[in-house]
Amino acid sequence: MANVADFRWKKDMKLHCFGSSLGTIGFQGTEIRNASNVIVKMRTEGAKIFLTFTSNMATSGLRGFFAQLIDLKMADVIVTTVGGIEEDIMKANGEKFPIGSFYSDDNALYEKGNNRVGNLLVENKSYEKFEDMIEPMLEKLYAKKQRYTVSELLYELGLQLNDKNSILYQASHHNVPIFCPAITDGAFGFHLYSFSLKHKDFIVDVVGDFSRLLSASTYDEKKGLISLGGGVSKHHAILGTLINGGLDYAIYMTTAHYTSGSMSGATTQEAKSWGKIKDDADAVTVIGDVSVFFPLAMCMALEELSKRGVVKV
Amino acid sequence: MANVADFRWKKDMKLHCFGSSLGTIGFQGTEIRNASNVIVKMRTEGAKIFLTFTSNMATSGLRGFFAQLIDLKMADVIVTTVGGIEEDIMKANGEKFPIGSFYSDDNALYEKGNNRVGNLLVENKSYEKFEDMIEPMLEKLYAKKQRYTVSELLYELGLQLNDKNSILYQASHHNVPIFCPAITDGAFGFHLYSFSLKHKDFIVDVVGDFSRLLSASTYDEKKGLISLGGGVSKHHAILGTLINGGLDYAIYMTTAHYTSGSMSGATTQEAKSWGKIKDDADAVTVIGDVSVFFPLAMCMALEELSKRGVVKV
Amino acid sequence: MANVADFRWKKDMKLHCFGSSLGTIGFQGTEIRNASNVIVKMRTEGAKIFLTFTSNMATSGLRGFFAQLIDLKMADVIVTTVGGIEEDIMKANGEKFPIGSFYSDDNALYEKGNNRVGNLLVENKSYEKFEDMIEPMLEKLYAKKQRYTVSELLYELGLQLNDKNSILYQASHHNVPIFCPAITDGAFGFHLYSFSLKHKDFIVDVVGDFSRLLSASTYDEKKGLISLGGGVSKHHAILGTLINGGLDYAIYMTTAHYTSGSMSGATTQEAKSWGKIKDDADAVTVIGDVSVFFPLAMCMALEELSKRGVVKV
Amino acid sequence: MANVADFRWKKDMKLHCFGSSLGTIGFQGTEIRNASNVIVKMRTEGAKIFLTFTSNMATSGLRGFFAQLIDLKMADVIVTTVGGIEEDIMKANGEKFPIGSFYSDDNALYEKGNNRVGNLLVENKSYEKFEDMIEPMLEKLYAKKQRYTVSELLYELGLQLNDKNSILYQASHHNVPIFCPAITDGAFGFHLYSFSLKHKDFIVDVVGDFSRLLSASTYDEKKGLISLGGGVSKHHAILGTLINGGLDYAIYMTTAHYTSGSMSGATTQEAKSWGKIKDDADAVTVIGDVSVFFPLAMCMALEELSKRGVVKV
Repeated sequence: MANVADFRWKKDMKLHCFGSSLGTIGFQGTEIRNASNVIVKMRTEGAKIFLTFTSNMATSGLRGFFAQLIDLKMADVIVTTVGGIEEDIMKANGEKFPIGSFYSDDNALYEKGNNRVGNLLVENKSYEKFEDMIEPMLEKLYAKKQRYTVSELLYELGLQLNDKNSILYQASHHNVPIFCPAITDGAFGFHLYSFSLKHKDFIVDVVGDFSRLLSASTYDEKKGLISLGGGVSKHHAILGTLINGGLDYAIYMTTAHYTSGSMSGATTQEAKSWGKIKDDADAVTVIGDVSVFFPLAMCMALEELSKRGVVKV
Repeated sequence: MANVADFRWKKDMKLHCFGSSLGTIGFQGTEIRNASNVIVKMRTEGAKIFLTFTSNMATSGLRGFFAQLIDLKMADVIVTTVGGIEEDIMKANGEKFPIGSFYSDDNALYEKGNNRVGNLLVENKSYEKFEDMIEPMLEKLYAKKQRYTVSELLYELGLQLNDKNSILYQASHHNVPIFCPAITDGAFGFHLYSFSLKHKDFIVDVVGDFSRLLSASTYDEKKGLISLGGGVSKHHAILGTLINGGLDYAIYMTTAHYTSGSMSGATTQEAKSWGKIKDDADAVTVIGDVSVFFPLAMCMALEELSKRGVVKV
Repeated sequence: MANVADFRWKKDMKLHCFGSSLGTIGFQGTEIRNASNVIVKMRTEGAKIFLTFTSNMATSGLRGFFAQLIDLKMADVIVTTVGGIEEDIMKANGEKFPIGSFYSDDNALYEKGNNRVGNLLVENKSYEKFEDMIEPMLEKLYAKKQRYTVSELLYELGLQLNDKNSILYQASHHNVPIFCPAITDGAFGFHLYSFSLKHKDFIVDVVGDFSRLLSASTYDEKKGLISLGGGVSKHHAILGTLINGGLDYAIYMTTAHYTSGSMSGATTQEAKSWGKIKDDADAVTVIGDVSVFFPLAMCMALEELSKRGVVKV
Repeated sequence: MANVADFRWKKDMKLHCFGSSLGTIGFQGTEIRNASNVIVKMRTEGAKIFLTFTSNMATSGLRGFFAQLIDLKMADVIVTTVGGIEEDIMKANGEKFPIGSFYSDDNALYEKGNNRVGNLLVENKSYEKFEDMIEPMLEKLYAKKQRYTVSELLYELGLQLNDKNSILYQASHHNVPIFCPAITDGAFGFHLYSFSLKHKDFIVDVVGDFSRLLSASTYDEKKGLISLGGGVSKHHAILGTLINGGLDYAIYMTTAHYTSGSMSGATTQEAKSWGKIKDDADAVTVIGDVSVFFPLAMCMALEELSKRGVVKV
């Protein structure tokens, strides 16, 4: 059993060195280190990796990191919600998201056409430009065929983008499916609806995607989950892997607590009662802000994986 | 401005009296009282009321309360996730959900076929019976027509139930639409998928439901939201009302905090920057466990509404 | 094992009936019911009851409830912090604390001499009047003797008050010791300091109170704890009972979570590793806002205890 | 106004570079960066810096970091609770603290003499050795004089240690006062009590320390606070600076939320209503686990301060 070690700053410290020290500080520092180790293990042992995140993370600067992770083969399947997909497309189109404050005057922001997401802002004009660009994108894929599962639809959209920091772009170019079970829950839902008014035979097939979710992993292969935040994204990935025998590796990273019985706050322990996570799996629940904890845990893992030659840069 | 008042217990206290005292205790007690007042106001002033909740609340004993609220015309539109719909049907079918402990041995629970949701349990046999009953239910509605929006589908399922404590039953009998944008995110998704393999022309139309969500309220009518928990349910109701000009009344009740920038933790203040909530709306953010806070706030409101003759018992 | 039961509102509902229903709703509702049962048990079985709370609870309307609980013999020992003691005295002196908002303009409040505590306010003038009244009170007790332990000092102050809703008043009249290990951490600390400048032989003996804390319970008697919030108050009561063999009954009620390793968030489980709580003790950790959860749990317990004739009204 | 930037991992990344990127990720990442900037500013502009932390942080590996910070002149005044002081002395005496798990079998730990603090352990033998060593240490200082304020007492203890990673050692050698208003709230309280039984004239003067707290800063000098966690430590430092005109710079870093009205969760905004923080002060509230967030924010600050030649290594 390791002991707590006194942390000391060193000038010009490497992130990897900082990360190692975190592991012997204790509390969530130790859990981040544990999570990082499990990520290294799931990748090294060739697991199929499911990465899930909520929309606000695509609002944040993690969006480019998710794109990079797909490029580095750290994610084989993505599950997310539609707000983040919209914003990924906006950003691929050059839109900038200003950094604001958690304690803004929200009525004043409204007057200026700024929509607040925590301490970040999305401008009305970004939504307007999105509206202008999405219709021709849909027309283009409609010309090919008229019935799409959600993941097929997102694949086609990704092919139409040109930004290496785009999640959709990288997913399409690496053939990583993006599942988004609540595809209508955003401005994009409205645009799909408007589009379908003009094209009565256009069908978004959510049930059909279930088949693809099931075939995204097999009963026999090792399955790993990196779940960031909670909600539908977290649950959907777990559902897909549960049906195929449960997870061998799991990271739950969130600010939600178990005490309200919500899915978002459910721990990796609770998951074992369902068989969502195998009883001998490598599983870590980390409680904290993903904007900080995830890049820390993942960068530490990438450094190690690159040292081992598993991840090639 | 009211002052803090010393709370004192009285023998044989009425809930209504307890609730009034909460309002002058301070902290979340005061916010519960504020929320209760806003519920009274939205109902008295004839607002269209959107009620949203997460699946775990249908796992809990709030399920029968939601059914009662529909019956009492306290909810005109429901938005939720699919797990709760499954469990509502299970319970309508007579299944019992045992009360367990947050600190169980989850491997032991797994061996016994008990799935844990916080301190509650759902038995495997409940899922098995659900599987047995859902296919004939789907066959029945498929015999009528082959393409359903989600809310139409849930309406048909509700008609096939016979339990006054069932959310679906009450919703169908009061013509209250239930929106569930992520309809495939649960065992039900799997059953829909299996069903569609046999019936290739069976279509679940999520985009079509967007139209119904928009027509569930109008620009001119007053709109109120009671949002319990976060996630897709919360966001979808807000989206539907935003497009129609924003909310006049809003209760956000959740354990999630604003600090991570998530939708689940977004406050009624943040909502104003988007126009989701009007700048002069009656809006309250209450932070706490919905299993306790919601029945408190709502029972206080019902007592007052019944005294005013608005709610008839 | 009990099952989840559908909650239903009834017109003119009694609090006791509401409370019973909470127990079968699940999540924290069930934990509140469990806590209530443990309170009934500790009182019925004659345990020495330690009640701890943080200062903000004395700012709130719980202050009068704590006083009532002492009067009803529901608390044999109090541990708290000094801010609450100051405010108890202010209120006994007739000061009113306005109810404000969590989202105030704090610079504007400052200009008006209003100090914010969450959604409550303490006016500068209340502090000024406290300053005026505390010196003569100290002079009075200094005339009797010059060296006081903290609990002796607070006993003397309580004797000088005349308000049945005062914690100090009731504690002094029922000979319930109030321990306050960080007695200087507030305006009162400053006044003690000023007073000691004038009276060099005036000694506040914190070490001496340790003896009284130890003798507040014995190794052989049953010991119960109702800990509201965290910090020094929580820890000090646990320390006192640990030395006498650990707790037989314990309620930890707080919004703090275990994940940061803090004392405030430490669970009743963790306490067992220390022997702070006996391994077969009745112990419940309840997570939520004390301003709501505590009066609920305690009123349910009082109703039951009064029905049993244990508490006499 | 800065914009969100896509985060990307680079091989062999420097911590400083990682930290800069955090600032444009958003959410708490941005707040950590803001906190780091305020730390740089308070140090560069010559503020008197108050550093406060709770005991569990001395249990963790942050203990050595706090010692280093005193050595680097990043803390002019320390406020903490007594548990951390005990553990600092244990560690200076060579005791090791094992890293365990949040999900241990606490009854089994008890049997083995392991006391759990989150995912860390303190062994009974460490407490026993502490007991053996503390009495001679007290005898030594008692030989000099018989009446000590708490900070004088801790100064004398620090002089008797010999460990550069010890908080007390560094504080004594740099003449940094350590305030600990609740000095009896721990095993040390018991030892002080036992000692005072033998030495009736031994007095621990808590009131006397108030004078030293006040003189630790002046009305005219700039005052900065780095508050880690909540409770008495946080409040006491604020109290000391409030009386001298309020803070010019403040970092509140904690997992506690404002919603319960507690001191621990009180924000830097709320502080302005009291004049605890000046209205034009540089103040940041960061919400997250200190074991991760603090070393990140502080290492970024140290790197910058060392680049500027303000901190010399």
